[in-house]
Amino acid sequence: MRKVFQQELREVQDRLVLIAELVVEAIEQATTAFGSSDVTLAEQVIDNGERIDTLAGELDELTIDILARQQPVASDLRLMVGALRMSASLERMADLAQHIAQLARYRYPESAIPQGLRKTFTKMGAIDVQMAQGLVALLRDQDPELIDQIRDLDDDLDELHAKVFEKVLSDKIRADATGVVDATLASRYHERFGDHAVNITKQMNFFLHGDLN
Amino acid sequence: MRKVFQQELREVQDRLVLIAELVVEAIEQATTAFGSSDVTLAEQVIDNGERIDTLAGELDELTIDILARQQPVASDLRLMVGALRMSASLERMADLAQHIAQLARYRYPESAIPQGLRKTFTKMGAIDVQMAQGLVALLRDQDPELIDQIRDLDDDLDELHAKVFEKVLSDKIRADATGVVDATLASRYHERFGDHAVNITKQMNFFLHGDLN
Repeated sequence: MRKVFQQELREVQDRLVLIAELVVEAIEQATTAFGSSDVTLAEQVIDNGERIDTLAGELDELTIDILARQQPVASDLRLMVGALRMSASLERMADLAQHIAQLARYRYPESAIPQGLRKTFTKMGAIDVQMAQGLVALLRDQDPELIDQIRDLDDDLDELHAKVFEKVLSDKIRADATGVVDATLASRYHERFGDHAVNITKQMNFFLHGDLN
Repeated sequence: MRKVFQQELREVQDRLVLIAELVVEAIEQATTAFGSSDVTLAEQVIDNGERIDTLAGELDELTIDILARQQPVASDLRLMVGALRMSASLERMADLAQHIAQLARYRYPESAIPQGLRKTFTKMGAIDVQMAQGLVALLRDQDPELIDQIRDLDDDLDELHAKVFEKVLSDKIRADATGVVDATLASRYHERFGDHAVNITKQMNFFLHGDLN
């Protein structure tokens, strides 16, 4: 019985890692599609979103089933509660990758990125990818040092987010209303992507140390 | 023992209702502050956010504690899982109310609403309030009919969200980059507010019928 339970906990962890890997792929492809106005790649990201939703839903079912059958306590219970929340954050990160891809698709064959913001968005996308890769490693190896690394990356992302608004509201870049809307939304999506990654580090901290910070 | 458990379940429900009531207050005040550029009211919303965060955190602790001690099954377990998720959505709705208030504060003494969008944002705010009031009733009375009502309101909100972009991108309204950024963000905040309300209806559906739709 105990052995089955340990296998089930392991299964929850493996599935979180798998979903996080798909989020890495989604955000990598979404930022590439956004940067290069690649509509085929954008559509691929949008289509793949459904798979992540399904996997997250199945993980939730498994988690609730384990809660009902095994009635875990202490760190096992914290992993179950954390898994329910982390699956929601991962699903949301995939949604945000889809939103970024959708911006690329809407504006195609134009670029969704106003002149003068290309470098900033490239940096934001690269940080997103690094954060998602950090989550894969954190979920797999449970190394607490990764938590700080991911949070530092989120600080960088927030700085770039502020910079986007600064540029959009200055006269430095030439953007029409469409460009301003796209830049505002894209920047907000990146910022929220980072917030969800930080949420996941909080859940891992809770699981590892019982502390929700 | 059973009686204590029933009291604890009731306590979880009561706390969800209380947090939802605070969300009603927050979104009412935030949309008033946004519409009338009332910086004092905006600051009040921002200050009150902390109380909601604390209450949601305490509810999570209680829920996890009940899961550990009482090891609920069936609909009791679904209420616990739902409570963890609903508290997260309610907290997020309060965050979004704060974001709307922040827009009012940033632009003060100017208005954050571009010319020609005042009516649309007033409608969005009124729908948000109705949705939040619907959640209070749903959490308190568990009347499934409220679920459809809340979802219909979300459809109205999504239509208004699309209308904001249509107007911003047309030549009908005169807005500088600041106005476009503010309208884009405010509209997005309202839309997300509605999405979270719908998430809560899904959790209530799950609790009432075991069905996550």
